[in-house]
Amino acid sequence: MSKLPNVSTSIFTVMSKMASEYNAINLSQGFPNFPVDERLTDIVAKLAKENVHQYTPMAGFPPLMNQIAKLVKSSYNRTIIPETEILVTAGATQGIFTTILALVKTGDEVIILDPSYDSYESPVLLCNAKPVRVALNDDYTPNWETIEKACSSKTKLIIINNPHNPTGKILTEDDFLQLEKLLSKYPDLLVLSDEVYEYITFEEKHISAHTKEFLLNRCIMVSSFGKSFHITGWKIGYTVAPEYLMKEIKKVHQFLVFSVNSISQAAISEYLDIVDVNLLGKFYQEKRDYFQELLQNSRFELKPCEGTYFQVASYTNISNDDDVSFCKKLIIDHGVAAIPISTFYSDHKDQKLIRFCFAKDNLTLELAAKKLCDI
Amino acid sequence: MSKLPNVSTSIFTVMSKMASEYNAINLSQGFPNFPVDERLTDIVAKLAKENVHQYTPMAGFPPLMNQIAKLVKSSYNRTIIPETEILVTAGATQGIFTTILALVKTGDEVIILDPSYDSYESPVLLCNAKPVRVALNDDYTPNWETIEKACSSKTKLIIINNPHNPTGKILTEDDFLQLEKLLSKYPDLLVLSDEVYEYITFEEKHISAHTKEFLLNRCIMVSSFGKSFHITGWKIGYTVAPEYLMKEIKKVHQFLVFSVNSISQAAISEYLDIVDVNLLGKFYQEKRDYFQELLQNSRFELKPCEGTYFQVASYTNISNDDDVSFCKKLIIDHGVAAIPISTFYSDHKDQKLIRFCFAKDNLTLELAAKKLCDI
Ligand SMILES: CSCCC(=O)C(=O)O
Ligand SMILES: CSCCC(=O)C(=O)O
Repeated sequence: MSKLPNVSTSIFTVMSKMASEYNAINLSQGFPNFPVDERLTDIVAKLAKENVHQYTPMAGFPPLMNQIAKLVKSSYNRTIIPETEILVTAGATQGIFTTILALVKTGDEVIILDPSYDSYESPVLLCNAKPVRVALNDDYTPNWETIEKACSSKTKLIIINNPHNPTGKILTEDDFLQLEKLLSKYPDLLVLSDEVYEYITFEEKHISAHTKEFLLNRCIMVSSFGKSFHITGWKIGYTVAPEYLMKEIKKVHQFLVFSVNSISQAAISEYLDIVDVNLLGKFYQEKRDYFQELLQNSRFELKPCEGTYFQVASYTNISNDDDVSFCKKLIIDHGVAAIPISTFYSDHKDQKLIRFCFAKDNLTLELAAKKLCDI
Repeated sequence: MSKLPNVSTSIFTVMSKMASEYNAINLSQGFPNFPVDERLTDIVAKLAKENVHQYTPMAGFPPLMNQIAKLVKSSYNRTIIPETEILVTAGATQGIFTTILALVKTGDEVIILDPSYDSYESPVLLCNAKPVRVALNDDYTPNWETIEKACSSKTKLIIINNPHNPTGKILTEDDFLQLEKLLSKYPDLLVLSDEVYEYITFEEKHISAHTKEFLLNRCIMVSSFGKSFHITGWKIGYTVAPEYLMKEIKKVHQFLVFSVNSISQAAISEYLDIVDVNLLGKFYQEKRDYFQELLQNSRFELKPCEGTYFQVASYTNISNDDDVSFCKKLIIDHGVAAIPISTFYSDHKDQKLIRFCFAKDNLTLELAAKKLCDI
């Protein structure tokens, strides 16, 4: 009997594979298709010839850990101690998995919002714990009343994703006030804040868990250089947590992976000296605006997008298909791959909505839009 | 309460840190200190400028998976199917962890030999399963009688490590006969074969699990390019398993890390076209012989070393200290770092034995040996 009986091949794998089989433009899986900053690839080429090929220390390459502390300081004015509060991980996914494995015990409950990214439930199940899914409101804001109703003394962790994949929603000051109230009622409740798109927000400023005093001692923050530097393949992320939690997370990390790719860590560490993460929001805002403009004359109806590099669209003017079938037809008949939003719901119920990734060069966006406008 | 209450900072971290604090020659943690093959670093420098920076498919970069199948074919004449039987992992450690998490359930028992490498127990404990430690014989061969006595219908997995870290022992044809007998009595028992030093054996040929018909359908084989190509920092390994087991392992992998560093995978894939892994045994045999020769006039007594890049030594002619204290003094008073063998035992009982890593350039071995001969 399988320990994860309900897990099948991830929709991202299925759609990317189908896209390449049908030679479709791939706006499904979230990864950029434009070249990486030459300054970063120059660093890699240079470092290849240096002494960066053996194990880094377990928790991370020390210069990179210092750079992460500087980044968090300059972005959010939060002081974190590299040695005790930072862990460099093989992507944010490994940070999330390791955190859950370290902190969630048999019988615990974990609040996961619905819809949400697909990598939260399985680690909870592997801990013999219970994922408790709580629906977001229709506008994808958290419903703090239903969240509170779902909480009990068994609730160990609530997972938030801000900015939110797939909906592009970001949390507001009021959301954090509500979260603070909730946490004051459940003194043992911890927060896992998945902020991999932290630098990709648009009109509204991203509010990081880093900036909230009430979270500092009870929040695990996960981020990803893959998203921030257009290098999703490198699989380098980091986790920030207060020392008493980080100690437990490191115990699992030590046996789960021990350490993380050394050249990539060294390269990102040097790159952080010259890159300005604050340009990222503007860069992707232009892409979003361009993609939205290109689709203006299509029959798709575009939803608001406050952050991430994903655009949600309704196709009810075009078809009555369920969103999975529609995505398959979109590939086969129209040459564009997207992700059905039902994927992100625990019950996989048809939402008549699909998600496009606009982290693509302008030519790709234009070609895709042309096909989408022809439908 | 911690889920891993008995886990403390790994001895490899402690000793490497102490070595650098005291400016000692580091023969503790197992990693090479000589330059990586220029042909491999040339490939990295070239690839940095190519399109290898986004997610590879979940189970691995397809060209690398094909190369792994070719490598296993040429090394062991075993045909494996890349798509269904191979997983590329963030180092062998992640392969081991993921395998255990996928296959071991609450209440299962897992046979772990004693002594053994330190990353087998924790994943078993995280599964709410029971590690059952079985002592090796005094000459570090497995004692198949006691192993069989330790087996029951609850035993899910037996973990073998061949060549064996830290003792350098390799399994014989007779060991495999005994294993076959055991497996015939327990039809549900699986084998996890950690063969990260598969290409580092000396007078005796390594016998891989790949070559044993009776294992093909019930063995998970874990290996590491870090050990074979002197790139421990890259954290690229692979796992081979029959499809019905690999399916379960992939389900966990997908949420544990999703995919593995793309540039490193692409580089190793190209390198496999030009490198000859069969030269590795000779390369390290020369190092072992040289190191043993250099220590001939020391008061250390060297144990046999059939494989791996580790040399076990007794120091009872020098000191009555327990092996942990002796290693600390060796760093502080004599400027050489080693690993106490007690570390590898479940009860951490003093063995009066230490382990040197001889994966070092000759100058380092000479400098270390000089210090060791002066004691
Ligand atoms: C790890 S594959 C999925 C990539 C991603 O973040 C997304 O498409 O949502
Ligand atoms: C991952 S640190 C330990 C390296 C190693 O394999 C050893 O020294 O035994």
